Amino acid sequence: MKFETLYWDGDIDGVLVLTDQRKLPNEFVDLKCETTQNVFDAIITLATRGAPAIGVAAAYGVCVHMQTCENCDLPKAVEHLNSGADYLATSRPTAVNLFWALEKMKGVAENFLESNPHETLKQLREKLLVQAKLIEAQDKEMCAAIGDNGLQFIKPNSRILTHCNAGALATAGIGTALAPMYAAKNAGIDFKVYADETRPLLQGARLTAWELSQNEIDVTVVCDNMAGWMMKKEMIDLVIVGADRIAANGDAANKIGTYSLSILAKHHEVPFYVAAPSSTFDLSLESGELIPIEQRGSDEVACFAGVKTAPNEAKVFNPAFDVAPAENITAIITERGVIEFPTKEKIESLMK
Amino acid sequence: MKFETLYWDGDIDGVLVLTDQRKLPNEFVDLKCETTQNVFDAIITLATRGAPAIGVAAAYGVCVHMQTCENCDLPKAVEHLNSGADYLATSRPTAVNLFWALEKMKGVAENFLESNPHETLKQLREKLLVQAKLIEAQDKEMCAAIGDNGLQFIKPNSRILTHCNAGALATAGIGTALAPMYAAKNAGIDFKVYADETRPLLQGARLTAWELSQNEIDVTVVCDNMAGWMMKKEMIDLVIVGADRIAANGDAANKIGTYSLSILAKHHEVPFYVAAPSSTFDLSLESGELIPIEQRGSDEVACFAGVKTAPNEAKVFNPAFDVAPAENITAIITERGVIEFPTKEKIESLMK
Repeated sequence: MKFETLYWDGDIDGVLVLTDQRKLPNEFVDLKCETTQNVFDAIITLATRGAPAIGVAAAYGVCVHMQTCENCDLPKAVEHLNSGADYLATSRPTAVNLFWALEKMKGVAENFLESNPHETLKQLREKLLVQAKLIEAQDKEMCAAIGDNGLQFIKPNSRILTHCNAGALATAGIGTALAPMYAAKNAGIDFKVYADETRPLLQGARLTAWELSQNEIDVTVVCDNMAGWMMKKEMIDLVIVGADRIAANGDAANKIGTYSLSILAKHHEVPFYVAAPSSTFDLSLESGELIPIEQRGSDEVACFAGVKTAPNEAKVFNPAFDVAPAENITAIITERGVIEFPTKEKIESLMK
Repeated sequence: MKFETLYWDGDIDGVLVLTDQRKLPNEFVDLKCETTQNVFDAIITLATRGAPAIGVAAAYGVCVHMQTCENCDLPKAVEHLNSGADYLATSRPTAVNLFWALEKMKGVAENFLESNPHETLKQLREKLLVQAKLIEAQDKEMCAAIGDNGLQFIKPNSRILTHCNAGALATAGIGTALAPMYAAKNAGIDFKVYADETRPLLQGARLTAWELSQNEIDVTVVCDNMAGWMMKKEMIDLVIVGADRIAANGDAANKIGTYSLSILAKHHEVPFYVAAPSSTFDLSLESGELIPIEQRGSDEVACFAGVKTAPNEAKVFNPAFDVAPAENITAIITERGVIEFPTKEKIESLMK
């Protein structure tokens, strides 16, 4: 990988450093997050995005937050941590990894308080940083394992369609949906990627096309509305997308447009794969109907680079995600293995 | 209608005046076409666009072209006309109305040469201007008739999805796909329009949303990739789109994305209407497979308002049109009547 999406710089008094993805592909700029507010803003404004990366950023966000608790006693510190984590949890509603990572951090503090009531805050903060680094390291491993598990689906000369960015920029590692592509590149397989530009925020054009071409993978940008026609013209052999939350029955929430792609892929008998870590599963939700869908502001659609693209009088509808039904998913590729034709039972058994 | 899309200003020495649609919705600017090249450029750069409007513009383009033939004799003038018309015909490949209008203009000259060999060039030019004005007037009538014929499909509180711009800005009149909406507005029916923004050139966001809101119709802009999800969420009662060329079997070429919409509409049992004048039919082509699809430049996708949206290293695929198969079309609404579940036989019988 030719760049780092996010990392912690320093000891417990360090900072979270993010690639500012709002500036790509035109500028590669680091963003230093030195306050809880910085981390919150980076997540809500999509300076960092992608379900796994948000989880890692939030975990480090807790470490940043704990820097403002210098004179707390331990129970106060845990309270301070919980309120910071709860605040960070309100930055984005759909990706479950955010809540998962924050719960892990809270768990560390609770355990610490129970088992080490006489230790110092500094020691707690060290434990928290270790946990955040562990989440990052596990994320890297998870990506690599998804790559290995998904490699089988990429044949020589495969033409792969992907949507949004579920790549290195969406994780601490080599991505989820893009991980099998990096694995195939390493294995010397020739293939071609079509990146849906992914309106409104163009994560496909700006991010996926950027990171794949940085890593010398053949990539072509297309508009979202071209995918169906390309399937009809037999230009696409398979689709691989990421996921922000997967319900117990296998319904997968992902960037808006994924639902349509799943219908179009099924209609054209193109295999449709979802690649995501097990932390993306939310077994508390029976089906995708229950996944909250983030609605974002109208300017994302009606404005670009400061230029209005729609008249002021027009309204805008801007759901950030939709849900691909399990019945349209050929397989879910996780770090633990592949779930073909996902069902509640198969998912439960893999998650055990 | 609160604006004029295009008109002829003056006598045979006049100019073609177009609304420069590249500047909408931010500026409403007239573009004067005083040379054949001006007209050609206006069509190829999409200053004017939409199959019927292109036909009208091309007809007036011939009148402009004939202004540079002051000292020709009549046979020379016809030659000059033919070469100008042939040049204008190369501006866009998909919309058949362009060729249809230019053939009409050529026919006027041929007939004139045969029946009035001793008349003057000035008289030929007058005849040509009369023909161009007739094409414009017929276009206005055609739009009104499509509106009347399509009105039956818009019920109180209908939520209509449209794609690209097949409105007043695409014709000399009240549009094709949008004509039934203007008719419904006039009839006092309450309804709501969702305008697909229509990447890459955003004709839906920039033009459809603009002209509907100018005429006080409730319009909401959505990204192309949201339409399927909105159908799933039962937010869409019907789809109406235009067409650039319709084959003998009813397959309809229209702006890229129309094919996907037709599949999604069928899947969700949402009626899918195509509104187009009879001049859009090309009975010489048996099926949509034979309709030439214009490929446009990569900057339309990879650049917006001078800002790169994709890295230089990435390729771009940019077909401007696709073809909705007849089997996905609930009805074609023409000025001559409505063809439900279009077939070759039904189309032939209406075109007689």
